[in-house]
Amino acid sequence: MTETFTDWLRQRSEPDWTAVVTHPFTQGLFDGLVPVTSMRSYLVQDYQFVDDFLALLGSALAKADRYSSRLAIAGSIAVVTSEENTYFQRAFDALGVGEADRVRPKLDEATVAFRELISDTNARGSYAEVLTVLTVAEWTYLEWAMRAPAALPENFVHAEWITLHNNPDFQSWVRWLCRELDRVGADLDERDRARCLRLFQHATRCELDFFNTHSP
Amino acid sequence: MTETFTDWLRQRSEPDWTAVVTHPFTQGLFDGLVPVTSMRSYLVQDYQFVDDFLALLGSALAKADRYSSRLAIAGSIAVVTSEENTYFQRAFDALGVGEADRVRPKLDEATVAFRELISDTNARGSYAEVLTVLTVAEWTYLEWAMRAPAALPENFVHAEWITLHNNPDFQSWVRWLCRELDRVGADLDERDRARCLRLFQHATRCELDFFNTHSP
Repeated sequence: MTETFTDWLRQRSEPDWTAVVTHPFTQGLFDGLVPVTSMRSYLVQDYQFVDDFLALLGSALAKADRYSSRLAIAGSIAVVTSEENTYFQRAFDALGVGEADRVRPKLDEATVAFRELISDTNARGSYAEVLTVLTVAEWTYLEWAMRAPAALPENFVHAEWITLHNNPDFQSWVRWLCRELDRVGADLDERDRARCLRLFQHATRCELDFFNTHSP
Repeated sequence: MTETFTDWLRQRSEPDWTAVVTHPFTQGLFDGLVPVTSMRSYLVQDYQFVDDFLALLGSALAKADRYSSRLAIAGSIAVVTSEENTYFQRAFDALGVGEADRVRPKLDEATVAFRELISDTNARGSYAEVLTVLTVAEWTYLEWAMRAPAALPENFVHAEWITLHNNPDFQSWVRWLCRELDRVGADLDERDRARCLRLFQHATRCELDFFNTHSP
């Protein structure tokens, strides 16, 4: 049993990786106990990634090395622009988020740092590097959400944020992302693997800083 | 009434533009009279653009300067990977196209030239340049298809190729593309406008060469 590229990346991103996927904020979500102010600031800031993230998916679509990969990425683009977008609007309504905070909130330091990483990878990253950032963003979210108990919190703002990230379609997408990064990573030389590792570690740290910022 | 950027581009791409949108091949489509061998070679070669074109849409998604533009582009990506893809498979079945010619046909010179233009624009083009190539590809097709008579040919291979390119959703998408290129073009300097014009003229010529190659 040989180690896959994604396992290699994840193991070398500890202890941050485990800190993200077992973060107290996520336990608060499972229990429905994240205070409204924390949930509001978390979602307001997170929504500011939707545009960069969609652009990064476009970059993956543009840079992929084969048609079958493009079809898988296109499928994920369709999800980001449908289900996920409506969740944010409904959650903002429920949390009483005003127009200014939906459209152009003051950005936290952790948000700015992560957005810079994403937009830099979009503009200059190789396909492997784009996949690396996408994989950290999606895989960490799958891993914490898969730890959710069967009984979901009653508040849809909490419950749906969990099910958006552990439903079967999302599981398939993350499995595909990992397999794709394994496939592409197998052909990289040492230097390019090291670049992906630095990116993976950096992105994982960004996720951790983001959760830390919004924990009560 | 001032001239829009897209009108300026189109007028400076004559007489090729009119030659494309009134091409005898398209008249043959309207009459259902394109010989099977021509229709087969045309669609086999055209299908080879689907992958590059999807990648170019990804490049537009990655490079767009605002979220609302990304949503419009994402909508078009969904169409390319659904309705249009099934048409090709059904048409290939009807025309008796074998597996090799669906997956890896010998490419015509006109196909190679156009694919190079598209992939070069994907890799190195600005948002305005990506929009320019997309606009030529979609606007020429809308213009010839809008000339179709109300009575469509009986054969779905002909009829659906027309309705894929003149249905209301496609009309909206092309109108959006033109408006978007007008918006982005308004902020370009002389040099960048000239680069877009060269690309527009080159892409229009590629379309003409492509139709010429497959005309009986």
